[in-house]
Amino acid sequence: MAIDQRRVIELLNGADDVLILTHKNPDGDTLGCGVALYHVLTAMGKRARVLNGDVIPDRYSYLFEDVETLEFEPKFIVAVDVADNKLFGEELDALYGDKVDLCIDHHGTNVDYAKETFLNADDGAASLTLYRVFVEMGAEITPAIAAALYTGISTDTGCFRYSNTTPEALRVCADLIDAGADSAAINVAMFETKPFEYYDLLSEVLGSMRVFCEGKVVVFKVTNKMLEKTGATLDQCDSISAISRQFEGALCGITMKEKQDGGYKFSLRTHEPLDASALCAEFGGGGHMRAAGCDAPEGREEETLNELVALIEKELK
Amino acid sequence: MAIDQRRVIELLNGADDVLILTHKNPDGDTLGCGVALYHVLTAMGKRARVLNGDVIPDRYSYLFEDVETLEFEPKFIVAVDVADNKLFGEELDALYGDKVDLCIDHHGTNVDYAKETFLNADDGAASLTLYRVFVEMGAEITPAIAAALYTGISTDTGCFRYSNTTPEALRVCADLIDAGADSAAINVAMFETKPFEYYDLLSEVLGSMRVFCEGKVVVFKVTNKMLEKTGATLDQCDSISAISRQFEGALCGITMKEKQDGGYKFSLRTHEPLDASALCAEFGGGGHMRAAGCDAPEGREEETLNELVALIEKELK
Repeated sequence: MAIDQRRVIELLNGADDVLILTHKNPDGDTLGCGVALYHVLTAMGKRARVLNGDVIPDRYSYLFEDVETLEFEPKFIVAVDVADNKLFGEELDALYGDKVDLCIDHHGTNVDYAKETFLNADDGAASLTLYRVFVEMGAEITPAIAAALYTGISTDTGCFRYSNTTPEALRVCADLIDAGADSAAINVAMFETKPFEYYDLLSEVLGSMRVFCEGKVVVFKVTNKMLEKTGATLDQCDSISAISRQFEGALCGITMKEKQDGGYKFSLRTHEPLDASALCAEFGGGGHMRAAGCDAPEGREEETLNELVALIEKELK
Repeated sequence: MAIDQRRVIELLNGADDVLILTHKNPDGDTLGCGVALYHVLTAMGKRARVLNGDVIPDRYSYLFEDVETLEFEPKFIVAVDVADNKLFGEELDALYGDKVDLCIDHHGTNVDYAKETFLNADDGAASLTLYRVFVEMGAEITPAIAAALYTGISTDTGCFRYSNTTPEALRVCADLIDAGADSAAINVAMFETKPFEYYDLLSEVLGSMRVFCEGKVVVFKVTNKMLEKTGATLDQCDSISAISRQFEGALCGITMKEKQDGGYKFSLRTHEPLDASALCAEFGGGGHMRAAGCDAPEGREEETLNELVALIEKELK
């Protein structure tokens, strides 16, 4: 059920022993929201815990410096930046997928799995949606909260590069820096630090590049073999997906990532007029207008790619 | 002679037939300042012309859409974002180097070559310095001016990634988007569009990578041969320099670019505590705290590199 901001505040004010769920393959936005909400609830004297189905990549560890892992039986479950209960990961989905009281999200593709959902699809990041909630609640934006929300907004907007960067997002981040977010350090950690393996992987991936539709579609392939050879992790592929769209004249970048358990995950990045979310929806996936994903069944990745390229070709006509 | 903002406004109000000089190997900040100042002066009924000693790279062409090249004998000469008259290039330096009436700049290393200099070394971009001047003048910020200044601020701050990004820079850019700067299109052109040759060059450069001081110094080499082989241009090396600093644990990235006429240009990018500008000053160069450059004489590039690495090693102790 869709709710408004006033109802969100009512729910948060009334809640206690809050379990905060974030999405698997965690990014800065889901973790930033989770940690920020943890701090706001804790400051209100409530117990809260942030949970993720995956191991949190090291580079996000600064977010968790003052976050304690309290044990309690949750009385209220909030999901942040999670468009689909499947994205909790199998284990957490089985435990909590149908028990989420409140979802705060910015994905237009949200499947409405929670009892109540506060969705603002115009926001470049759920952290921006949440910031407005906090301001309306009168919550004090401490340096830790500011750092968490800054992380969420900056990562989901590609550090203010992407078309989802609104003037409001820039102004909010200015306020968050004033409130104590060390933006320079966060940006170095999020955008300016790559392990040596990352560039080894990039070299491999660039070697695998294919081009379709006269350069309008650029396709990268990331295999488990490449990851083994370079020592890079799947998590490091995210920035590589972004590169697939950067070639002059390219309107769609497709990164085909081999999954550990077989099959491929396709990550699409598009420029106008291609709607990545709509394209992926044709293959059972989803996401945002300019960044979305879908799965290809094992052994059918090339067939799926051909179908996808044909669909893009049709769209571009 | 150092002057304040009031004096800048006095000079601009009194000037006519204004020649605006920008620096060679032009970037978004010098061109953004030049074009924005052109529009403000033109709107005041004055004649103005933007001049650069180099060919302007294609990706900046949107800045010049409504800029006319008027012929007139200059009565007032302004330099924007130019720290040293040598940076005009030989020809323009010979013509105008000692005749600059006003310099508006943000380089702490400015050599004070102009009759009057308005310098704000705390600004991440000269476009930010200039924006404040325009606001104080009561100039209308048209979409063209907004686009030019947004380009300058976003490019000089690495699209708000670098440590020179202040809350003010974010707020000013929010205002510039509100005033009509198409930030999404500008960001695509400036940061999200690379020619296919760029990644060919990057692969070559990564292959040439050397590491010193236990990974704290990463050295790239870009030779004329690599440029020939890939078809890439020197201008495309700028983003490659930024990559040299991105390796986990690296505190200094050095990109050694072979010059057309022999010798090498070194581009330094640093993290705390290394001062790129101070390091380059030891070799007759200069720039900013986190990004600076110097030249190595023909045939002495490896010797210069060794000296530089030794100096960095000393600094880090």
